[in-house]
Amino acid sequence: MVVGAGFGGLFATKSLRRAEVDVTLINGTAYHLFQPLLYQVATGILSEGEIAPPIREILRRQDNVDVKLGWVRDVDVAARTVAVEAPGIDYTVEYDTLIVAAGASQSYFGNDGFADHAPGMKSIDDALELRARIFGAFELADLQSDPAEADRWMTFVVVGAGPTGVEMAGQIAELAHRTLPGQYKHIDPRRARIILIDALPAVLNTFGDHLSTRALRRLHLLGVEVELETKVVDVDATGIEVETKRGHQRIESMTKMWAAGVAAPPLSRKLAEAAGVETDRAGRIKVNPDCTLPGHPEIFAVGDMFSLNQLPGVAQVAIQSGRYAADQIKRRLAGKEPAKPFKYFDKGSMATISRFSAVASVGKLRVSGFLGWLMWLAVHLLYLVGFKNRVTAVLHWAVSFLGRGRSERVATFQQAYARAAVRAYGDPFERRRADAAAAPSPAAQPTDAAIR
Amino acid sequence: MVVGAGFGGLFATKSLRRAEVDVTLINGTAYHLFQPLLYQVATGILSEGEIAPPIREILRRQDNVDVKLGWVRDVDVAARTVAVEAPGIDYTVEYDTLIVAAGASQSYFGNDGFADHAPGMKSIDDALELRARIFGAFELADLQSDPAEADRWMTFVVVGAGPTGVEMAGQIAELAHRTLPGQYKHIDPRRARIILIDALPAVLNTFGDHLSTRALRRLHLLGVEVELETKVVDVDATGIEVETKRGHQRIESMTKMWAAGVAAPPLSRKLAEAAGVETDRAGRIKVNPDCTLPGHPEIFAVGDMFSLNQLPGVAQVAIQSGRYAADQIKRRLAGKEPAKPFKYFDKGSMATISRFSAVASVGKLRVSGFLGWLMWLAVHLLYLVGFKNRVTAVLHWAVSFLGRGRSERVATFQQAYARAAVRAYGDPFERRRADAAAAPSPAAQPTDAAIR
Repeated sequence: MVVGAGFGGLFATKSLRRAEVDVTLINGTAYHLFQPLLYQVATGILSEGEIAPPIREILRRQDNVDVKLGWVRDVDVAARTVAVEAPGIDYTVEYDTLIVAAGASQSYFGNDGFADHAPGMKSIDDALELRARIFGAFELADLQSDPAEADRWMTFVVVGAGPTGVEMAGQIAELAHRTLPGQYKHIDPRRARIILIDALPAVLNTFGDHLSTRALRRLHLLGVEVELETKVVDVDATGIEVETKRGHQRIESMTKMWAAGVAAPPLSRKLAEAAGVETDRAGRIKVNPDCTLPGHPEIFAVGDMFSLNQLPGVAQVAIQSGRYAADQIKRRLAGKEPAKPFKYFDKGSMATISRFSAVASVGKLRVSGFLGWLMWLAVHLLYLVGFKNRVTAVLHWAVSFLGRGRSERVATFQQAYARAAVRAYGDPFERRRADAAAAPSPAAQPTDAAIR
Repeated sequence: MVVGAGFGGLFATKSLRRAEVDVTLINGTAYHLFQPLLYQVATGILSEGEIAPPIREILRRQDNVDVKLGWVRDVDVAARTVAVEAPGIDYTVEYDTLIVAAGASQSYFGNDGFADHAPGMKSIDDALELRARIFGAFELADLQSDPAEADRWMTFVVVGAGPTGVEMAGQIAELAHRTLPGQYKHIDPRRARIILIDALPAVLNTFGDHLSTRALRRLHLLGVEVELETKVVDVDATGIEVETKRGHQRIESMTKMWAAGVAAPPLSRKLAEAAGVETDRAGRIKVNPDCTLPGHPEIFAVGDMFSLNQLPGVAQVAIQSGRYAADQIKRRLAGKEPAKPFKYFDKGSMATISRFSAVASVGKLRVSGFLGWLMWLAVHLLYLVGFKNRVTAVLHWAVSFLGRGRSERVATFQQAYARAAVRAYGDPFERRRADAAAAPSPAAQPTDAAIR
């Protein structure tokens, strides 16, 4: 069984295509999410469908997979079952071998209340909410008669200067300078302030000094204010409090976003506890060199959920470890020797800063500017090609890169108010249980179905 | 000033392009909605951006327009001002001449509680919620161990057999028979029941006997069960109660949708009362033959909001009456004679039933099948061309019509739970006022700004 259809889980499942196994793939959404392009949904370039193809569509030619919708809430390592929740139904599934690839959640470093005011960048919901907030901010700025109020709506703060934060800041700058000018009567979108904050002394810290400096220069050219060695102390509805080298400071801003940290999901600690294994500070499971849990050769943890050799939480680690776990399983079935310990092959990393400009670090190669951007384009096109969404995505890119338009600017009521509504409504699963207890109805009543 | 950027308000505004006037265009969303294609968003063919281009983008070359986001809550006909609410700000705007084109809302004929279980088809929010419910229903059917429960998830009920209802039913049938088969382990999507209900004795009642019969035959071929002369008595979470010729019946179904009736928005009655004019049973304002309100030559009501010569609530009536109102205003400015009373030129109506098959009624011409579909395609392409969304929309159509795929199948958490969340959270404007009263903060406090 595979838990999670992100990069780790999806590639593990695909690698098992020709194996003599029945794979049950469980995921909380019906789609696989191509997370590296999430910022393009948040800034109106691509539609959500273009970066989130249905899992069933991707795997439609793989007969040995049973795709199931649901959130895995617990693992019973003795009985070898997982407990799953989906809307209106709870069920358990048995496994012989388990690959856990449930990814990572946004981390607010203990300040979860920040999430109400500074959405993260981990899900389609996040991206659509940010899209509604970003485009909505310009609409609302245009309505203000008080200039201070308008400025507050025209100030965008991005926390975290890793690839996601840098890409978000760059895209908002492009919106403000290329897409939106001339469309408002009372504001000049070019006057928008975009502030990128990080606690570290460099942007794109993991890319090395050379590319970091290049990226910083490019961000300055775009008009992004970069505040390094700056810590976020508090976030509220109308602003953000920071601690800089120069002391305490408040930035008035209605639109904040959080791209600063990740943590393992609750399932990670639950599983570790059940299996009697350790987790690291981020809650990731400390695995054996072959990605299995100590004492549990039948359980693999891969991608963002495992802690091994201080590997970073990037797509390539997830893909390679997912494939590695699948390979080990195939070797066991064939009665072969186990493979050598998992070794990550670093294919490099890249980040776009604006159109025609990206930085890429591949082996000893450091590329920036237009050449880096061409590499970025090639890599992302190749990936999308696998999902049949290439043609319209390429067109939307053409519109956005060559023209100045954005095709996907819809901000719906539910997107703009989703977070507030969910906060008021609570976790729908919790709610469902409460509803079922209060007044049982056929739909609301949890069903304990054992599906194999 | 123009209230509403639907077909009526948008075309009125565009007609005033070369006039010596300042137009303020107020709309509750930042986009214009091409409603006739809403069913394609609900069934995964087009993205929301493709049918909902930003108003500012459409009007970017028209300098005499000030676009404002907000809901018009009231009109002071004596002071000639409108009161508007937007998130975090209330404001008033003065007018010399007013064109009211606020469209229509879904009507549940007094049973507003039905809305929780059977979303309407009037907004992008509605379409995205239905998309989440429709694709989610197949996911959840696949999880059920109880066959009766699975059947309930596999039964789709569409109330209302006008163009929207017929198009929805046809598209769900295509999903079930062409797109989804082979993607599930425990259900056969082709076994889905799609039931189309109407109180009248014919589908597409306004298209005449010949096309109605053709459409009915085509729906039967698609496997849609059509229940005519059937009234909805009750709708709940797990089913729908109907009164048929054969007596009372309950249909077990988790997924219901409502395309049965429209009513004028609350603003219509408010304005009529303030101006001392009458409304019809649907709440639409009874206007003079020149679309002005009796006793108020400075106020025009157009499109779905006016009651005149029993004209239907269709896009062409809105477009033509919007243009007519703009034309009257230009004549007044030029000191010309008023134009003759508004006369609707019926360009015909059409509805697609499935790919390659539509019915169209143009003048005395009645066309059905492939030829009707080509006409439908031509008309809708021409319209979209005006909004620059043509290329990707055409590609998405090609994918859907020639292949069997759907590009836009994302069902997000917020979309699936939006209605429940909003019900719990309440109207965000009401909520905001309550919040502001409880604990005033710069963002939550209503600002009374007078913007001219």
